[in-house]
Amino acid sequence: MQTEDRAALRELITTHRQAALGTVDDGAPFVSMVLYALEWRAGAGPAFIIHVSGLSAHTRHMRADPRVSLLVMQPDVGADDPQALARVTIQCQAVPLATDDPTYPAARAAYLTRLPRQEYLFGFPDFTLFRLEPRSARFIGGFARAFSLTADQLAEVLGTGS
Amino acid sequence: MQTEDRAALRELITTHRQAALGTVDDGAPFVSMVLYALEWRAGAGPAFIIHVSGLSAHTRHMRADPRVSLLVMQPDVGADDPQALARVTIQCQAVPLATDDPTYPAARAAYLTRLPRQEYLFGFPDFTLFRLEPRSARFIGGFARAFSLTADQLAEVLGTGS
Repeated sequence: MQTEDRAALRELITTHRQAALGTVDDGAPFVSMVLYALEWRAGAGPAFIIHVSGLSAHTRHMRADPRVSLLVMQPDVGADDPQALARVTIQCQAVPLATDDPTYPAARAAYLTRLPRQEYLFGFPDFTLFRLEPRSARFIGGFARAFSLTADQLAEVLGTGS
Repeated sequence: MQTEDRAALRELITTHRQAALGTVDDGAPFVSMVLYALEWRAGAGPAFIIHVSGLSAHTRHMRADPRVSLLVMQPDVGADDPQALARVTIQCQAVPLATDDPTYPAARAAYLTRLPRQEYLFGFPDFTLFRLEPRSARFIGGFARAFSLTADQLAEVLGTGS
């Protein structure tokens, strides 16, 4: 990937907070909206933190099968050619975080730093934090600019300034 | 559903053209961006028309398993509370349309009326139209405004002015 594609991918992920989450429901796909924050932990690659209701379908699906797919898109707000909008699909493993997990406070802080208005939802007992750990990614930056990345390559793009 | 929720769902689907498509890849979910147009056929409910490359993963997935999930979201462009953004998940059956299918010309016309800039892609031999036929939907119009709809209920909401 060229420097400009790396910058575009990093900007796509770091400037947005809305994503489409794909889960599997008894073999069938299901896509729902989630809000995310990027989390950096010492000794681990970047991960996506989401906060979801135990009453919702996607939470039930993730508990049954932790394989998820996260899509972040440049939103279409009257694009001249919407086919050229940048987007990235990140295949992840979803891990629920119990409130007594040693990594829970930092994950909660990462989420609320990015999404401070969502703090009230931590008062609902049925909400849970999940950490989505990237396994691979597919970035489409525009026409003829498609790239497959390993988790390490994604971490490297997200973690550097060039 | 109240009149205002019906109007919000109709507006969400009819004013956007960008969606997240969920497919299944050997049991795992995969989400990618697609552009869509709403199609109305005499004697059938509304459907979503997409135009996809045979070289892309989602096309391969749909050919192996026609169950798909389509998410249309109100885009987050600095929303005060992004959790309140309206979104709808539509569970569909994907049907590839051969160019000699009697319904192909009308589907192509519906797509290009909505997405005229995409006409050049019809010159690529590996692109195919798919019709996504709704089976059910889940609409979240905001806090405490979630509704499950059958395909008939969705058709009724999309097809009426109230």
